[in-house]
Amino acid sequence: MKSSLHNLRVVLVAPRNPLNIGAVARAISNFGEAELRVVNPYEVAFRDAKSAVGASPVLAAAKEFGGVAEAVADCAWVVGTTAVRHRQLQQPLKVLVQGARAVRSKLARSPVAILFGSEKWGLSNDSLSHCHWVLHIPTRAEHQSMNLGQAVAVCLYELVRARPLPLPASGQPNPATLDVVERITSTLLTALRSSEYINPKTGQLAEEKLRRMIRRMALEAADAEVLLGMLHKIVWKLERGEAKQQ
Amino acid sequence: MKSSLHNLRVVLVAPRNPLNIGAVARAISNFGEAELRVVNPYEVAFRDAKSAVGASPVLAAAKEFGGVAEAVADCAWVVGTTAVRHRQLQQPLKVLVQGARAVRSKLARSPVAILFGSEKWGLSNDSLSHCHWVLHIPTRAEHQSMNLGQAVAVCLYELVRARPLPLPASGQPNPATLDVVERITSTLLTALRSSEYINPKTGQLAEEKLRRMIRRMALEAADAEVLLGMLHKIVWKLERGEAKQQ
Repeated sequence: MKSSLHNLRVVLVAPRNPLNIGAVARAISNFGEAELRVVNPYEVAFRDAKSAVGASPVLAAAKEFGGVAEAVADCAWVVGTTAVRHRQLQQPLKVLVQGARAVRSKLARSPVAILFGSEKWGLSNDSLSHCHWVLHIPTRAEHQSMNLGQAVAVCLYELVRARPLPLPASGQPNPATLDVVERITSTLLTALRSSEYINPKTGQLAEEKLRRMIRRMALEAADAEVLLGMLHKIVWKLERGEAKQQ
Repeated sequence: MKSSLHNLRVVLVAPRNPLNIGAVARAISNFGEAELRVVNPYEVAFRDAKSAVGASPVLAAAKEFGGVAEAVADCAWVVGTTAVRHRQLQQPLKVLVQGARAVRSKLARSPVAILFGSEKWGLSNDSLSHCHWVLHIPTRAEHQSMNLGQAVAVCLYELVRARPLPLPASGQPNPATLDVVERITSTLLTALRSSEYINPKTGQLAEEKLRRMIRRMALEAADAEVLLGMLHKIVWKLERGEAKQQ
Protein backbone atom coordinates (compact mmCIF):
# COMPACT_ATOMS: atom_id res chain seq x y z
CA MET A 1 0.00 0.00 0.00
CA LYS A 2 1.28 3.43 -0.84
CA SER A 3 1.97 5.69 2.12
CA SER A 4 0.29 9.06 2.46
CA LEU A 5 3.59 10.72 1.51
CA HIS A 6 4.30 8.84 -1.74
CA ASN A 7 3.46 12.05 -3.67
CA LEU A 8 5.88 14.14 -1.64
CA ARG A 9 9.30 15.25 -2.87
CA VAL A 10 11.68 16.59 -0.24
CA VAL A 11 14.02 18.92 -2.11
CA LEU A 12 17.30 20.03 -0.51
CA VAL A 13 18.72 23.09 -2.23
CA ALA A 14 22.52 23.39 -2.03
CA PRO A 15 23.02 21.29 1.11
CA ARG A 16 26.58 21.46 2.45
CA ASN A 17 26.86 18.72 5.09
CA PRO A 18 26.71 14.97 4.32
CA LEU A 19 25.50 14.25 7.87
CA ASN A 20 22.51 16.51 7.31
CA ILE A 21 21.70 14.86 3.98
CA GLY A 22 21.86 11.49 5.75
CA ALA A 23 19.65 12.73 8.59
CA VAL A 24 17.06 13.98 6.10
CA ALA A 25 17.04 10.56 4.40
CA ARG A 26 16.54 8.90 7.77
CA ALA A 27 13.58 11.14 8.65
CA ILE A 28 12.02 10.36 5.27
CA SER A 29 12.47 6.67 5.96
CA ASN A 30 10.96 7.04 9.45
CA PHE A 31 7.84 8.88 8.41
CA GLY A 32 6.88 7.80 4.93
CA GLU A 33 7.91 7.13 1.39
CA ALA A 34 8.69 10.57 0.09
CA GLU A 35 11.32 11.03 -2.62
CA LEU A 36 14.55 12.81 -1.79
CA ARG A 37 15.84 15.28 -4.39
CA VAL A 38 18.97 17.35 -4.16
CA VAL A 39 19.68 20.55 -6.10
CA ASN A 40 23.30 21.61 -6.58
CA PRO A 41 24.71 19.88 -3.50
CA TYR A 42 28.32 20.36 -2.55
CA GLU A 43 29.67 17.45 -4.56
CA VAL A 44 31.66 15.96 -1.72
CA ALA A 45 28.69 16.18 0.65
CA PHE A 46 26.36 14.28 -1.63
CA ARG A 47 28.93 11.62 -2.47
CA ASP A 48 29.90 11.12 1.17
CA ALA A 49 26.27 10.89 2.25
CA LYS A 50 25.52 8.31 -0.44
CA SER A 51 28.49 6.17 0.49
CA ALA A 52 27.94 6.35 4.26
CA VAL A 53 27.62 3.03 6.05
CA GLY A 54 23.97 2.20 6.43
CA ALA A 55 22.84 4.77 3.89
CA SER A 56 19.15 4.15 3.47
CA PRO A 57 17.34 3.11 0.29
CA VAL A 58 15.92 6.66 0.36
CA LEU A 59 19.42 8.06 -0.06
CA ALA A 60 20.40 5.48 -2.66
CA ALA A 61 17.38 6.52 -4.73
CA ALA A 62 17.94 10.26 -4.25
CA LYS A 63 18.16 12.23 -7.50
CA GLU A 64 20.38 15.19 -8.22
CA PHE A 65 19.27 18.24 -10.21
CA GLY A 66 20.98 21.33 -11.59
CA GLY A 67 18.24 23.76 -10.64
CA VAL A 68 15.02 24.17 -8.68
CA ALA A 69 12.92 24.35 -11.85
CA GLU A 70 14.15 20.93 -13.00
CA ALA A 71 13.74 19.40 -9.53
CA VAL A 72 10.08 20.41 -9.28
CA ALA A 73 9.12 20.02 -12.93
CA ASP A 74 6.76 17.08 -12.32
CA CYS A 75 5.12 18.66 -9.25
CA ALA A 76 1.86 20.57 -9.12
CA TRP A 77 2.68 22.51 -5.96
CA VAL A 78 5.91 23.86 -4.54
CA VAL A 79 6.24 24.89 -0.91
CA GLY A 80 9.22 26.71 0.57
CA THR A 81 10.40 26.73 4.15
CA THR A 82 11.83 29.58 6.18
CA ALA A 83 13.00 30.03 9.74
CA VAL A 84 12.85 33.75 9.71
CA ARG A 85 9.68 35.60 10.38
CA HIS A 86 10.68 39.12 9.42
CA ARG A 87 11.94 38.25 5.97
CA GLN A 88 10.20 40.25 3.28
CA LEU A 89 8.37 37.37 1.66
CA GLN A 90 6.38 37.76 -1.53
CA GLN A 91 4.53 34.48 -0.94
CA PRO A 92 1.85 33.66 1.62
CA LEU A 93 3.40 32.42 4.88
CA LYS A 94 1.70 29.56 6.76
CA VAL A 95 2.73 28.18 10.12
CA LEU A 96 3.42 24.47 9.96
CA VAL A 97 0.11 23.28 11.48
CA GLN A 98 -1.96 25.11 8.86
CA GLY A 99 0.55 24.68 6.07
CA ALA A 100 0.81 20.92 6.58
CA ARG A 101 -2.96 20.63 6.37
CA ALA A 102 -2.86 22.36 2.99
CA VAL A 103 0.03 20.15 1.83
CA ARG A 104 -1.86 17.00 2.88
CA SER A 105 -4.93 17.92 0.90
CA LYS A 106 -2.77 18.62 -2.21
CA LEU A 107 -0.78 15.38 -1.71
CA ALA A 108 -3.93 13.33 -1.93
CA ARG A 109 -4.17 14.27 -5.61
CA SER A 110 -0.87 15.56 -6.98
CA PRO A 111 2.87 15.67 -6.41
CA VAL A 112 4.05 18.34 -3.98
CA ALA A 113 7.64 19.52 -3.46
CA ILE A 114 8.84 21.00 -0.16
CA LEU A 115 12.06 22.97 -0.52
CA PHE A 116 14.67 23.28 2.24
CA GLY A 117 17.53 25.73 1.77
CA SER A 118 21.20 25.36 2.61
CA GLU A 119 22.29 25.15 6.23
CA LYS A 120 23.95 28.51 5.98
CA TRP A 121 21.63 30.71 3.97
CA GLY A 122 18.26 29.05 3.71
CA LEU A 123 16.38 29.47 0.44
CA SER A 124 17.41 32.27 -1.91
CA ASN A 125 14.85 34.65 -3.33
CA ASP A 126 15.32 32.90 -6.65
CA SER A 127 14.46 29.53 -5.08
CA LEU A 128 11.52 31.08 -3.23
CA SER A 129 10.17 32.47 -6.51
CA HIS A 130 9.32 28.88 -7.48
CA CYS A 131 7.09 28.45 -4.41
CA HIS A 132 3.33 28.79 -4.11
CA TRP A 133 3.58 29.39 -0.41
CA VAL A 134 6.08 29.18 2.42
CA LEU A 135 6.01 27.06 5.58
CA HIS A 136 7.30 28.34 8.90
CA ILE A 137 8.05 26.17 11.94
CA PRO A 138 7.31 28.38 14.95
CA THR A 139 10.45 28.68 17.07
CA ARG A 140 11.65 31.03 19.79
CA ALA A 141 12.43 34.53 18.59
CA GLU A 142 15.85 34.21 20.27
CA HIS A 143 16.81 31.15 18.20
CA GLN A 144 14.80 30.68 15.04
CA SER A 145 17.10 28.77 12.73
CA MET A 146 16.71 25.00 12.96
CA ASN A 147 19.13 22.24 12.03
CA LEU A 148 18.27 20.94 8.54
CA GLY A 149 17.69 17.32 9.55
CA GLN A 150 15.54 18.36 12.49
CA ALA A 151 13.48 20.79 10.42
CA VAL A 152 12.70 18.05 7.89
CA ALA A 153 11.83 15.59 10.67
CA VAL A 154 9.42 18.07 12.28
CA CYS A 155 7.74 18.87 8.95
CA LEU A 156 7.28 15.20 8.06
CA TYR A 157 6.01 14.42 11.55
CA GLU A 158 3.39 17.15 11.23
CA LEU A 159 2.37 15.81 7.80
CA VAL A 160 1.69 12.30 9.10
CA ARG A 161 0.55 13.38 12.58
CA ALA A 162 -3.09 13.25 11.67
CA ARG A 163 -4.46 10.20 9.96
CA PRO A 164 -4.16 10.32 6.19
CA LEU A 165 -7.04 12.03 4.53
CA PRO A 166 -9.37 9.93 2.41
CA LEU A 167 -9.06 10.57 -1.30
CA PRO A 168 -11.45 13.28 -2.38
CA ALA A 169 -14.14 12.56 -4.91
CA SER A 170 -13.00 12.92 -8.49
CA GLY A 171 -14.24 15.77 -10.62
CA GLN A 172 -11.92 18.33 -9.08
CA PRO A 173 -9.75 20.01 -11.68
CA ASN A 174 -6.15 18.87 -12.00
CA PRO A 175 -3.57 21.51 -11.19
CA ALA A 176 -0.97 22.25 -13.86
CA THR A 177 2.43 20.62 -13.38
CA LEU A 178 5.34 22.93 -12.81
CA ASP A 179 7.12 22.15 -16.06
CA VAL A 180 4.18 23.65 -17.97
CA VAL A 181 3.95 26.55 -15.52
CA GLU A 182 7.65 27.25 -15.98
CA ARG A 183 7.28 27.14 -19.78
CA ILE A 184 4.45 29.66 -19.48
CA THR A 185 6.73 31.86 -17.42
CA SER A 186 9.61 31.69 -19.89
CA THR A 187 7.40 32.16 -22.95
CA LEU A 188 5.69 35.16 -21.39
CA LEU A 189 9.13 36.54 -20.54
CA THR A 190 10.10 36.22 -24.19
CA ALA A 191 6.94 38.05 -25.21
CA LEU A 192 7.55 40.81 -22.68
CA ARG A 193 11.13 41.30 -23.84
CA SER A 194 10.12 41.25 -27.47
CA SER A 195 7.39 43.82 -26.81
CA GLU A 196 9.82 45.98 -24.81
CA TYR A 197 7.75 45.67 -21.63
CA ILE A 198 10.84 44.45 -19.80
CA ASN A 199 13.92 46.60 -19.51
CA PRO A 200 16.94 44.31 -20.09
CA LYS A 201 18.76 45.90 -17.16
CA THR A 202 16.17 44.78 -14.61
CA GLY A 203 15.45 41.47 -16.29
CA GLN A 204 16.37 39.18 -13.40
CA LEU A 205 14.06 40.97 -10.97
CA ALA A 206 11.28 40.86 -13.56
CA GLU A 207 11.75 37.13 -13.99
CA GLU A 208 11.36 36.39 -10.28
CA LYS A 209 8.32 38.65 -10.00
CA LEU A 210 6.77 37.02 -13.02
CA ARG A 211 7.43 33.52 -11.70
CA ARG A 212 5.68 34.35 -8.43
CA MET A 213 2.76 35.96 -10.22
CA ILE A 214 2.17 32.99 -12.52
CA ARG A 215 2.22 30.63 -9.54
CA ARG A 216 -0.31 32.75 -7.66
CA MET A 217 -2.72 32.06 -10.51
CA ALA A 218 -2.81 28.37 -9.49
CA LEU A 219 -3.55 27.34 -13.08
CA GLU A 220 -5.50 24.24 -13.90
CA ALA A 221 -3.79 21.74 -16.20
CA ALA A 222 -6.11 22.30 -19.18
CA ASP A 223 -5.99 26.10 -18.86
CA ALA A 224 -2.22 26.04 -18.63
CA GLU A 225 -1.93 24.19 -21.94
CA VAL A 226 -4.27 26.68 -23.61
CA LEU A 227 -2.39 29.64 -22.15
CA LEU A 228 0.93 28.24 -23.29
CA GLY A 229 -0.44 27.82 -26.82
CA MET A 230 -1.64 31.43 -26.82
CA LEU A 231 1.73 32.72 -25.69
CA HIS A 232 3.62 30.68 -28.28
CA LYS A 233 1.46 32.15 -31.00
CA ILE A 234 1.92 35.69 -29.67
CA VAL A 235 5.69 35.24 -29.50
CA TRP A 236 5.72 33.81 -33.01
CA LYS A 237 3.82 36.85 -34.28
CA LEU A 238 5.96 39.33 -32.35
CA GLU A 239 9.14 37.82 -33.75
CA ARG A 240 7.74 37.65 -37.27
CA GLY A 241 6.88 41.34 -36.98
CA GLU A 242 10.43 42.10 -35.88
CA ALA A 243 11.93 40.05 -38.69
CA LYS A 244 9.88 41.84 -41.35
CA GLN A 245 10.88 45.20 -39.98
CA GLN A 246 14.54 44.43 -40.52
CA MET B 1 8.75 35.79 30.69
CA LYS B 2 9.30 32.09 31.27
CA SER B 3 8.57 29.81 28.36
CA SER B 4 6.05 27.00 28.62
CA LEU B 5 8.94 24.54 28.80
CA HIS B 6 10.92 26.07 31.69
CA ASN B 7 9.84 23.15 33.90
CA LEU B 8 11.07 20.55 31.41
CA ARG B 9 14.31 18.58 31.74
CA VAL B 10 15.52 16.76 28.65
CA VAL B 11 17.62 13.85 29.94
CA LEU B 12 20.00 12.02 27.60
CA VAL B 13 21.01 8.64 29.00
CA ALA B 14 24.43 7.38 27.85
CA PRO B 15 24.61 9.38 24.60
CA ARG B 16 27.56 8.38 22.41
CA ASN B 17 27.81 11.02 19.67
CA PRO B 18 28.79 14.65 20.35
CA LEU B 19 26.94 15.77 17.21
CA ASN B 20 23.72 14.33 18.59
CA ILE B 21 24.23 16.03 21.95
CA GLY B 22 24.77 19.28 20.09
CA ALA B 23 21.67 18.73 17.96
CA VAL B 24 19.57 18.10 21.08
CA ALA B 25 20.84 21.36 22.59
CA ARG B 26 19.92 23.19 19.42
CA ALA B 27 16.37 21.80 19.41
CA ILE B 28 15.97 22.83 23.05
CA SER B 29 17.13 26.32 22.14
CA ASN B 30 14.75 26.44 19.16
CA PHE B 31 11.64 25.40 21.02
CA GLY B 32 11.86 26.54 24.60
CA GLU B 33 13.93 26.89 27.69
CA ALA B 34 14.15 23.34 28.90
CA GLU B 35 17.20 22.17 30.83
CA LEU B 36 19.56 19.65 29.27
CA ARG B 37 20.83 16.87 31.54
CA VAL B 38 23.17 14.08 30.61
CA VAL B 39 23.53 10.75 32.39
CA ASN B 40 26.76 8.77 31.99
CA PRO B 41 27.70 10.16 28.61
CA TYR B 42 30.69 8.83 26.77
CA GLU B 43 33.21 11.24 28.26
CA VAL B 44 34.70 12.26 24.95
CA ALA B 45 31.29 12.86 23.41
CA PHE B 46 30.17 15.25 26.13
CA ARG B 47 33.46 17.13 26.20
CA ASP B 48 33.54 17.48 22.41
CA ALA B 49 29.93 18.65 22.28
CA LYS B 50 30.58 21.27 24.96
CA SER B 51 33.64 22.61 23.22
CA ALA B 52 32.12 22.69 19.74
CA VAL B 53 32.15 26.02 17.96
CA GLY B 54 28.84 27.75 18.47
CA ALA B 55 27.81 25.49 21.35
CA SER B 56 24.64 27.02 22.69
CA PRO B 57 24.05 28.41 26.17
CA VAL B 58 21.82 25.35 26.64
CA LEU B 59 24.85 23.08 26.20
CA ALA B 60 27.08 25.26 28.34
CA ALA B 61 24.55 24.96 31.17
CA ALA B 62 24.01 21.21 30.71
CA LYS B 63 24.56 19.15 33.87
CA GLU B 64 26.09 15.70 34.09
CA PHE B 65 24.80 12.97 36.40
CA GLY B 66 25.99 9.50 37.39
CA GLY B 67 22.56 7.88 37.23
CA VAL B 68 18.95 8.37 36.18
CA ALA B 69 17.76 8.64 39.79
CA GLU B 70 20.03 11.62 40.47
CA ALA B 71 19.16 13.26 37.16
CA VAL B 72 15.42 13.24 37.87
CA ALA B 73 15.59 13.78 41.63
CA ASP B 74 13.97 17.25 41.52
CA CYS B 75 11.22 16.22 39.07
CA ALA B 76 7.63 15.25 39.85
CA TRP B 77 7.12 13.21 36.70
CA VAL B 78 9.44 11.10 34.56
CA VAL B 79 8.54 10.10 31.03
CA GLY B 80 10.48 7.63 28.89
CA THR B 81 10.69 7.41 25.11
CA THR B 82 10.82 4.36 22.88
CA ALA B 83 10.89 3.70 19.17
CA VAL B 84 9.87 0.10 19.44
CA ARG B 85 6.26 -0.86 19.77
CA HIS B 86 6.52 -4.54 20.62
CA ARG B 87 8.84 -4.08 23.56
CA GLN B 88 7.50 -5.67 26.73
CA LEU B 89 6.81 -2.45 28.59
CA GLN B 90 5.67 -2.37 32.18
CA GLN B 91 4.61 1.26 31.90
CA PRO B 92 1.66 2.77 30.04
CA LEU B 93 2.56 3.63 26.44
CA LYS B 94 1.19 6.85 24.96
CA VAL B 95 1.65 8.01 21.39
CA LEU B 96 3.21 11.43 21.20
CA VAL B 97 0.06 13.45 20.53
CA GLN B 98 -1.67 12.16 23.67
CA GLY B 99 1.49 11.87 25.71
CA ALA B 100 2.54 15.45 25.00
CA ARG B 101 -0.85 16.67 26.15
CA ALA B 102 -0.32 14.90 29.47
CA VAL B 103 3.22 16.30 29.78
CA ARG B 104 1.95 19.84 29.12
CA SER B 105 -0.63 19.62 31.87
CA LYS B 106 2.01 18.37 34.33
CA LEU B 107 4.52 21.02 33.23
CA ALA B 108 2.13 23.78 34.18
CA ARG B 109 2.60 22.82 37.82
CA SER B 110 5.78 20.80 38.32
CA PRO B 111 9.11 19.75 36.79
CA VAL B 112 8.92 16.91 34.27
CA ALA B 113 11.83 14.89 32.88
CA ILE B 114 11.75 13.22 29.46
CA LEU B 115 14.38 10.50 29.05
CA PHE B 116 16.02 9.61 25.74
CA GLY B 117 18.19 6.50 25.52
CA SER B 118 21.50 5.96 23.77
CA GLU B 119 21.64 6.00 19.97
CA LYS B 120 22.38 2.30 19.91
CA TRP B 121 20.22 0.69 22.56
CA GLY B 122 17.54 3.13 23.59
CA LEU B 123 16.54 3.16 27.27
CA SER B 124 17.43 0.13 29.37
CA ASN B 125 14.82 -1.57 31.50
CA ASP B 126 16.58 -0.05 34.48
CA SER B 127 16.18 3.46 33.07
CA LEU B 128 12.57 2.76 32.11
CA SER B 129 11.83 1.67 35.66
CA HIS B 130 12.14 5.33 36.68
CA CYS B 131 9.37 6.37 34.28
CA HIS B 132 5.70 7.03 35.00
CA TRP B 133 4.81 6.41 31.39
CA VAL B 134 6.48 6.06 28.00
CA LEU B 135 6.13 8.20 24.89
CA HIS B 136 6.17 6.76 21.38
CA ILE B 137 6.63 8.73 18.17
CA PRO B 138 4.63 6.89 15.51
CA THR B 139 6.93 5.87 12.65
CA ARG B 140 6.77 3.37 9.80
CA ALA B 141 6.93 -0.25 10.88
CA GLU B 142 9.78 -0.73 8.38
CA HIS B 143 11.96 1.90 10.03
CA GLN B 144 11.04 2.78 13.60
CA SER B 145 14.25 3.97 15.16
CA MET B 146 14.75 7.72 14.93
CA ASN B 147 17.92 9.76 15.11
CA LEU B 148 18.33 11.13 18.66
CA GLY B 149 18.45 14.81 17.70
CA GLN B 150 15.43 14.42 15.43
CA ALA B 151 13.42 12.52 18.06
CA VAL B 152 14.02 15.29 20.61
CA ALA B 153 13.11 17.96 18.05
CA VAL B 154 9.83 16.22 17.19
CA CYS B 155 8.91 15.76 20.89
CA LEU B 156 9.62 19.40 21.72
CA TYR B 157 7.74 20.55 18.63
CA GLU B 158 4.70 18.56 19.74
CA LEU B 159 4.94 20.06 23.23
CA VAL B 160 4.87 23.64 21.96
CA ARG B 161 2.72 22.95 18.90
CA ALA B 162 -0.49 24.16 20.51
CA ARG B 163 1.12 27.40 21.68
CA PRO B 164 -0.31 30.18 19.58
CA LEU B 165 2.33 32.23 17.82
CA PRO B 166 1.33 35.37 15.96
CA LEU B 167 2.05 35.44 12.26
CA PRO B 168 3.32 38.67 10.78
CA ALA B 169 0.46 40.97 9.97
CA SER B 170 0.61 40.65 6.21
CA GLY B 171 -2.94 41.34 5.13
CA GLN B 172 -4.78 38.99 2.85
CA PRO B 173 -4.40 39.95 -0.79
CA ASN B 174 -7.24 41.85 -2.42
CA PRO B 175 -8.94 40.11 -5.31
CA ALA B 176 -9.06 41.99 -8.60
CA THR B 177 -12.27 43.77 -9.39
CA LEU B 178 -14.23 42.51 -12.34
CA ASP B 179 -13.78 45.62 -14.43
CA VAL B 180 -10.04 45.02 -14.53
CA VAL B 181 -10.59 41.31 -15.16
CA GLU B 182 -12.83 42.12 -18.08
CA ARG B 183 -10.28 44.57 -19.52
CA ILE B 184 -7.68 41.80 -19.27
CA THR B 185 -10.04 39.51 -21.16
CA SER B 186 -10.67 41.97 -23.95
CA THR B 187 -7.04 43.01 -24.29
CA LEU B 188 -5.92 39.38 -24.44
CA LEU B 189 -8.59 38.78 -27.07
CA THR B 190 -7.15 41.61 -29.15
CA ALA B 191 -3.67 40.09 -28.82
CA LEU B 192 -4.93 36.65 -29.81
CA ARG B 193 -6.72 38.01 -32.88
CA SER B 194 -3.72 40.08 -33.87
CA SER B 195 -1.40 37.06 -33.52
CA GLU B 196 -3.85 34.89 -35.49
CA TYR B 197 -4.38 32.53 -32.55
CA ILE B 198 -8.12 33.10 -32.86
CA ASN B 199 -9.93 32.22 -36.02
CA PRO B 200 -12.40 35.07 -36.70
CA LYS B 201 -15.14 32.56 -37.54
CA THR B 202 -15.12 31.01 -34.10
CA GLY B 203 -14.33 34.22 -32.25
CA GLN B 204 -17.45 34.33 -30.10
CA LEU B 205 -16.83 30.88 -28.64
CA ALA B 206 -13.19 31.78 -27.96
CA GLU B 207 -14.26 34.90 -26.11
CA GLU B 208 -16.50 32.98 -23.74
CA LYS B 209 -13.88 30.32 -23.09
CA LEU B 210 -11.30 32.99 -22.45
CA ARG B 211 -13.57 34.86 -20.04
CA ARG B 212 -14.13 31.72 -17.98
CA MET B 213 -10.44 30.89 -18.00
CA ILE B 214 -9.35 34.33 -16.80
CA ARG B 215 -11.84 34.15 -13.96
CA ARG B 216 -10.59 30.74 -12.87
CA MET B 217 -7.21 32.36 -12.25
CA ALA B 218 -8.74 34.33 -9.34
CA LEU B 219 -6.27 37.17 -9.89
CA GLU B 220 -5.14 39.42 -7.08
CA ALA B 221 -5.69 43.13 -7.62
CA ALA B 222 -2.01 44.04 -7.93
CA ASP B 223 -1.27 41.13 -10.29
CA ALA B 224 -4.25 42.05 -12.48
CA GLU B 225 -2.92 45.59 -12.99
CA VAL B 226 0.50 44.23 -13.92
CA LEU B 227 -0.96 41.67 -16.29
CA LEU B 228 -3.11 44.31 -17.96
CA GLY B 229 -0.04 46.49 -18.47
CA MET B 230 1.85 43.57 -20.02
CA LEU B 231 -0.99 42.83 -22.42
CA HIS B 232 -1.32 46.47 -23.48
CA LYS B 233 2.37 46.55 -24.32
CA ILE B 234 2.16 43.28 -26.25
CA VAL B 235 -0.84 44.53 -28.24
CA TRP B 236 0.94 47.79 -28.95
CA LYS B 237 3.96 45.90 -30.28
CA LEU B 238 1.85 43.46 -32.33
CA GLU B 239 -0.02 46.31 -33.99
CA ARG B 240 3.15 48.28 -34.58
CA GLY B 241 4.60 45.23 -36.32
CA GLU B 242 1.51 44.92 -38.48
CA ALA B 243 1.54 48.59 -39.38
CA LYS B 244 5.16 48.42 -40.50
CA GLN B 245 4.47 45.37 -42.62
CA GLN B 246 1.78 47.20 -44.59
